[in-house]
Amino acid sequence: MAEATREPAARTVVQQCLYAKLQVKPSDQNFEAEWVEIKRGMVIYVCFFKGADAAVIPKMVNCLLTVKLSETDSGKHVPITDLPGDVLIVPQATLGGKVKGRVTQYHSNASKELGMELYAEFIAQCQRELENHPKWAESGSVLRYGTYGNRQVLQLNTNGPYTHLLEF
Amino acid sequence: MAEATREPAARTVVQQCLYAKLQVKPSDQNFEAEWVEIKRGMVIYVCFFKGADAAVIPKMVNCLLTVKLSETDSGKHVPITDLPGDVLIVPQATLGGKVKGRVTQYHSNASKELGMELYAEFIAQCQRELENHPKWAESGSVLRYGTYGNRQVLQLNTNGPYTHLLEF
Repeated sequence: MAEATREPAARTVVQQCLYAKLQVKPSDQNFEAEWVEIKRGMVIYVCFFKGADAAVIPKMVNCLLTVKLSETDSGKHVPITDLPGDVLIVPQATLGGKVKGRVTQYHSNASKELGMELYAEFIAQCQRELENHPKWAESGSVLRYGTYGNRQVLQLNTNGPYTHLLEF
Repeated sequence: MAEATREPAARTVVQQCLYAKLQVKPSDQNFEAEWVEIKRGMVIYVCFFKGADAAVIPKMVNCLLTVKLSETDSGKHVPITDLPGDVLIVPQATLGGKVKGRVTQYHSNASKELGMELYAEFIAQCQRELENHPKWAESGSVLRYGTYGNRQVLQLNTNGPYTHLLEF
């Protein structure tokens, strides 16, 4: 079947939160599970597709960190760097799924190796870009992120998720 | 600029949860806020676009309630009716947003009247379809939903959100 849609290189879903907690290492016989948490800020679920390369990362970072998706106490929308607020990045390969009958297929997803590489680069560039914003850097805000390939055990507390889909 | 993509009639983002709580009426001078909650099941964020009509609803309901997006204790994926699990529907007009520079525009969204009508019909058909599944109906599972137009104050607890994008 002809596909009219240009396939994106990356898909993100963005939500705002008051608090979020994400498991980054499951428990085992010897150790308790490890978690990261953020306070008020944004959660970015991210998935990379086949054919994506590192060229997409600066576009993603620039867009996600400058678009006005964070609501201030007075109801104004500002970039996360101006809120200023925390950022939680959640790898979410399922976002690349396509429904085929009653199952979902992930044939368009980047390979695990490529996805992992792009994910690491995305985090590194987000961190660098955030730290370049004095208002963000001086606010004590943090960037946290999930472990690629892990189950993303997540708790989220919002004052309205304000969910957006951003593709690149 | 030419747009190669066919605009969808509806966009949904689906997550699985262990627990979710959604405000359906904010507090005022006289009354406390009202909430609905669900236990293990699925959260469906939904947005309708301009040009959508009621013909899309049966397709959405059939797909969302039969696709295998719910994980059993043994790690198998089954439809929500077979889990069986609760369903929480969250109206989320922001899902129709398009980034233009640093702001998001919602020009493609259905009008409030149309969106409200389709949202009500979507809920009604979900409820009917769920109740037609003896396993779901007899399990004591529930369908809950947010108030169209309200702020969707949401708390979510997941064992992995397993986020999917489904467009219709």
